[in-house]
Amino acid sequence: MKEYIEQNKERFYEELFSLLRIPSISAKAEHKEDMRRCAERLAVLLMEAGADFAEVSPSDGNPVVYGEKIVDPALKTVLVYGHYDVQPPEPLEKWRTDPFEPVIHDGAIWGRGANDDKGQLFMHVKAFEYLVCTGQLRHNVKFMFEGEEEIGSPNLPKWIKANKKRLAADVCLVSDTTMISEKVPSINCGMRGLSYLEVKVVGPNKDLHSGHYGGAVANPINVLCEMIATLHDADGRVNVPGFYDKVVELSRADRKMLARAPFDLKEYKEFLDIKDICGEKGYTTLERTGIRPCLDVCGIWGGYTGEGAKTVLPSEAHAKISMRLVPDQQSGEITKLFARHFKSIAPKCVKVEVKECEGGDGFLIPISSEAYKAAARAMTEVYGIEPVPSRGGGSIAVLAEVQKILGIDPLLMGFGLERDTIHSPNESYLLRQFFAGMESIALFYKYY
Amino acid sequence: MKEYIEQNKERFYEELFSLLRIPSISAKAEHKEDMRRCAERLAVLLMEAGADFAEVSPSDGNPVVYGEKIVDPALKTVLVYGHYDVQPPEPLEKWRTDPFEPVIHDGAIWGRGANDDKGQLFMHVKAFEYLVCTGQLRHNVKFMFEGEEEIGSPNLPKWIKANKKRLAADVCLVSDTTMISEKVPSINCGMRGLSYLEVKVVGPNKDLHSGHYGGAVANPINVLCEMIATLHDADGRVNVPGFYDKVVELSRADRKMLARAPFDLKEYKEFLDIKDICGEKGYTTLERTGIRPCLDVCGIWGGYTGEGAKTVLPSEAHAKISMRLVPDQQSGEITKLFARHFKSIAPKCVKVEVKECEGGDGFLIPISSEAYKAAARAMTEVYGIEPVPSRGGGSIAVLAEVQKILGIDPLLMGFGLERDTIHSPNESYLLRQFFAGMESIALFYKYY
Repeated sequence: MKEYIEQNKERFYEELFSLLRIPSISAKAEHKEDMRRCAERLAVLLMEAGADFAEVSPSDGNPVVYGEKIVDPALKTVLVYGHYDVQPPEPLEKWRTDPFEPVIHDGAIWGRGANDDKGQLFMHVKAFEYLVCTGQLRHNVKFMFEGEEEIGSPNLPKWIKANKKRLAADVCLVSDTTMISEKVPSINCGMRGLSYLEVKVVGPNKDLHSGHYGGAVANPINVLCEMIATLHDADGRVNVPGFYDKVVELSRADRKMLARAPFDLKEYKEFLDIKDICGEKGYTTLERTGIRPCLDVCGIWGGYTGEGAKTVLPSEAHAKISMRLVPDQQSGEITKLFARHFKSIAPKCVKVEVKECEGGDGFLIPISSEAYKAAARAMTEVYGIEPVPSRGGGSIAVLAEVQKILGIDPLLMGFGLERDTIHSPNESYLLRQFFAGMESIALFYKYY
Repeated sequence: MKEYIEQNKERFYEELFSLLRIPSISAKAEHKEDMRRCAERLAVLLMEAGADFAEVSPSDGNPVVYGEKIVDPALKTVLVYGHYDVQPPEPLEKWRTDPFEPVIHDGAIWGRGANDDKGQLFMHVKAFEYLVCTGQLRHNVKFMFEGEEEIGSPNLPKWIKANKKRLAADVCLVSDTTMISEKVPSINCGMRGLSYLEVKVVGPNKDLHSGHYGGAVANPINVLCEMIATLHDADGRVNVPGFYDKVVELSRADRKMLARAPFDLKEYKEFLDIKDICGEKGYTTLERTGIRPCLDVCGIWGGYTGEGAKTVLPSEAHAKISMRLVPDQQSGEITKLFARHFKSIAPKCVKVEVKECEGGDGFLIPISSEAYKAAARAMTEVYGIEPVPSRGGGSIAVLAEVQKILGIDPLLMGFGLERDTIHSPNESYLLRQFFAGMESIALFYKYY
């Protein structure tokens, strides 16, 4: 496929950029119309790539782009999953280029979605195009691209159930993860689940003069901080009763296998510019992100946050709290546990509101499957090194549902790298990986 | 003066509104030009009211409006202090009317600065006008209106030193505080000092994917919350070493005198819609705000604060922290103590930056002075009740400096009420108080 890429890459850029320019931010209601525009553009690209049929299919939320090419019902069927929605670009001031005006420099594509997931799903469309064009396609291929992954895929499970028949496939192929490094290609064999909540602490019914009331009336910011501070114990464990009840300890053998992934603490700290790491006592860094659950405050706000010194005892304080879960924990159950616990620790001087947001369960993927083996063979050929199985710390909420509803395993051929800083300012996607991904995917079809 | 008010009140409103319409927000650099416009308008109003002379005098920050009328150097001189800068109006969405388009309804003036301090300083200008017009002025009057009170008067002390001679006076008359209630008029005989700092906790050098790093890398929001949570102990005391070293315990007699101020806990809680009060163990609510120091987080922010569920392990978290101090604590010293302590409790996995903002010392005012007695007599005549001495929880940073540099005591004839919600959305000033204030001030000159 190398040659095909060489001949067509300017067109590839232009096509991908036409997706990247659309600010399809699912977290913000104001982008509803952008979601539709992006879905429609993607359906057009699928048809142009050689699909028999592609449509923008309504769901209870943003539409799903579905397309397919049925070569022969007797052949194996690959269901490709991806998402065309992106994370909000904030904080905007930290971007070196416009997040929605993609550019190529330093050997990478820069912009929101360049990697996650428009860039990665686009590799599938182009590998498919190549196989169709060159008469090599020996699989039925189905595409399911959703517009709500970044908000936890609240409506996709229902859509999958309703379309269960036409989604029938042998494997669900996904590029929406990272590999360890270019020198250590890896295939994700498990992801964490997610619980996400928004909490609000309300003190007095109006902002108060901090001189007139300070010291006598509970300050909701101070209270929120005190409540959040109790959510971890001294060993770095999440201090929510019941949180670890269903967490299964990995065997020594499993931990040993995961420890094969190379990890350089000095490099890690330098990359992040931190003096020290932290986390749950008794686990390595890769274990802390791969096989252990955790809790993070993703956002906090309250009171006066503008320039200068405004004295105020505010009425409210807010936080967004996410928990990454291991496959044995149920997102719905943990969300409820957290909500109940958080309300229970509120002092009487404040009111606490908890809003449960969408989450999803974690899952594991067997590395003994034909699909995994085909992917490993393809990547070995492209990278010249056999990929190692790894455990991703992130979450793709809907894939546990795919397992449950469609009865097929996902296969996570992810070509992102940590340096791509997805979800952060200056998201990028290395061109080398973009093209190596296309080649690997094309070879996957060959060996599967 | 009642009749004079009746004849002129429409003009009074228009004049005051011309000040209120100018968004003279000292905390924000973008309002530099508004500060100047407001100062110029105020100087014109002083001249129109009968000053011999009024000018917009430059300082190292926003200009000072100075005006005077010297009737006879042998007479007593009153220095009127006030400030024409206002607090930022945020949160804007909580205002029922435009903060900078003042209106009158429900017997009050509504808008930012309606009370604090444009409304209150304006009473002095009009009481002065009345005395001049009716030939009753038997004092020399000097006006010093600054534009940086809300940011801690960083430049006024230097300006006062430079203008020490022409500021010579017998008392510094100020209306920039509240009274207990219309039924319990009071005169402030002490105010708290202020220390204000902005802190920043920095974790990784960029925002991170909370799945890929969550559990292994310190989250600066969680760390900031944990640090803030340690700033109070279980008894509600400020947990900064050395914080209470210079706090003098009030005598039983003093506490008893302050306890004369009526206080209804049920009403207090209802007004604020809180189920419980809180604060330092062993003190009443009025003591907690009047004679005890405290610490409040006035603002906090970090990570994603927009709509929806964005998962991110942010690079930074920020907070604005204020401490209200009793007169024996030195603001500069406490600010340094806090900064040192806060840095010392930072875990190794983050970097902490502390920015010291302007503060000011607290002060006490003797109630045995001639000026205090004249004010009490004037207010007794207007309200029909003798005012009680009270201790204000707020701060007017520069008045301790006035005491030190000019060697005169402030006299705090404040006519605000808690219902005016200064520093908050929907600031207002009750017309009854606005006019009772003018009358009281005019009578103060009569009896002083």
